[in-house]
Amino acid sequence: MKISILGCYAATPRTLTNPTSQVLEIKDHLFLIDCGEGTQVQLRKNKIKFSRINHIFISHLHGDHFFGLPGLVSTFRLLGRDKEMHIYGPKGIKEAITLLLKLGDSWTNYPLVFHELTAMVPELIYEDDKVTVETIPLNHRVYTNGFLFKEKVAERKLNIEAVAKYKIDKAYFQNIKNGKDIVLDDGLIIPNVELTFDPVKPKSYAFCSDTSYKPDIVPQIKNVDVLYHESTFLNSEMHLVAKTKHSTAKEAALIAKTANVGTLILGHYSTRYKSIELFKDEAMKVYANVELADDGKVFEL
Amino acid sequence: MKISILGCYAATPRTLTNPTSQVLEIKDHLFLIDCGEGTQVQLRKNKIKFSRINHIFISHLHGDHFFGLPGLVSTFRLLGRDKEMHIYGPKGIKEAITLLLKLGDSWTNYPLVFHELTAMVPELIYEDDKVTVETIPLNHRVYTNGFLFKEKVAERKLNIEAVAKYKIDKAYFQNIKNGKDIVLDDGLIIPNVELTFDPVKPKSYAFCSDTSYKPDIVPQIKNVDVLYHESTFLNSEMHLVAKTKHSTAKEAALIAKTANVGTLILGHYSTRYKSIELFKDEAMKVYANVELADDGKVFEL
Repeated sequence: MKISILGCYAATPRTLTNPTSQVLEIKDHLFLIDCGEGTQVQLRKNKIKFSRINHIFISHLHGDHFFGLPGLVSTFRLLGRDKEMHIYGPKGIKEAITLLLKLGDSWTNYPLVFHELTAMVPELIYEDDKVTVETIPLNHRVYTNGFLFKEKVAERKLNIEAVAKYKIDKAYFQNIKNGKDIVLDDGLIIPNVELTFDPVKPKSYAFCSDTSYKPDIVPQIKNVDVLYHESTFLNSEMHLVAKTKHSTAKEAALIAKTANVGTLILGHYSTRYKSIELFKDEAMKVYANVELADDGKVFEL
Repeated sequence: MKISILGCYAATPRTLTNPTSQVLEIKDHLFLIDCGEGTQVQLRKNKIKFSRINHIFISHLHGDHFFGLPGLVSTFRLLGRDKEMHIYGPKGIKEAITLLLKLGDSWTNYPLVFHELTAMVPELIYEDDKVTVETIPLNHRVYTNGFLFKEKVAERKLNIEAVAKYKIDKAYFQNIKNGKDIVLDDGLIIPNVELTFDPVKPKSYAFCSDTSYKPDIVPQIKNVDVLYHESTFLNSEMHLVAKTKHSTAKEAALIAKTANVGTLILGHYSTRYKSIELFKDEAMKVYANVELADDGKVFEL
């Protein structure tokens, strides 16, 4: 699992800071999460292959999270894309993108499939044999979802020595990997645990931005390996938090601590502060495993 | 008169090349012309004060000429703007921008005034005491206008020695500057030309992008000081010109030559070529005064 931060600053794009966008690499998928203005340039700078992106998840329809999408959709066309592109985002996203394409008389020559979200409770929005994606309803000024990406539990690993010892035929291997016990010809039952090793623990990633402090997301994101949680402000700007429906670094850390996450990554920083290290300092008073997102930074698990 | 090129490359924004946008400084106005994705960052890099921009002219609704506009409009709000912003562009631009603002529940706190264009003939769209702006109807895949910016003829300059010699009262100075002759008390008529110098020649700038070769614009842009004309292709790609409705460097130079412009600035380059010098080489075979636009380059007259 690999998270490439393309942009992680609040509000407007600036010379050295980009609005929200990131790419999650999980089980051979490249999932693009949010798409602020300039995302396509950031994708190039980070040498991410455009053709490997087939799913785009948009948290909410504020400009700093989706004004890069019309340009990216157009660029896919110019690059000769023909594969389906799936876009998951709040209701209205389809109307916005199709209007912009219509005005430019620039329809895509690849299928653009919109999955518009309206649910106020967690919803399974993507599933294949290796990965699931659920929404995490958040609390912001407009309808907003975070996203929970989970690897599925993999097959158990065959203990080659054990199956050789019992002379078990290959025909039974898939059953064994699926967790089944084996009955030998003489009626002896070999429990699965003797024939296999535990599979690699499936990884999980929760993206939560933008949102005010919302402890009721904790049960859903309990024990995730990595939580990206917005921290627009420090505790000193607590008076701005309620009005803007953002979080402080301390609040992000409280969520991480209560949910017992592996690593907390902070981001969506207001540019009013001298250094983003201040966010880490504040969060680490509550929770030890804190990392700072920054544009171009890559986190590997 | 000063032209700051923010972006001058065709199609998608890339790491080192930006889509179309430029700022024309003329008679204390800063006019923003086109607004491709990333324009607000380019404005910052070029140290152009956002608050001095009150008029934005959009040639057409292809993404590389206007996908930076929603973000810029939002940023003006975040910067606390309260002055009117006037946006001139093809019909549909108001619906697009207002839909995006509505979806983000992010209305501007300054008046946003749209001037939607539909005319197929040149139209005076802006006028004050110093400057006029007219559309230049172009021929592209969608409805497109260039823009002709003209300084008005300034007042004649008072010849201080001459008015002193005839002992003309200050009360008549404005009439003299307006070109009137003066009748002295003894009935003698002093012709204006004896009391004034010619004013500075008013400057003019024509922006023509995107368009196929369209010689019928020549009468309108005759003798302009500077013509910015797109040259997406070289003559070797003549087969692409008709289909895409773009121009070659040679065609841009033919327009410049026939219109007897002062300087031709080329831009809107396809990124397929090794060097933009190739565009200059091709154009200079037709016309001598050719300059190359490039991102961040400033032309002063």
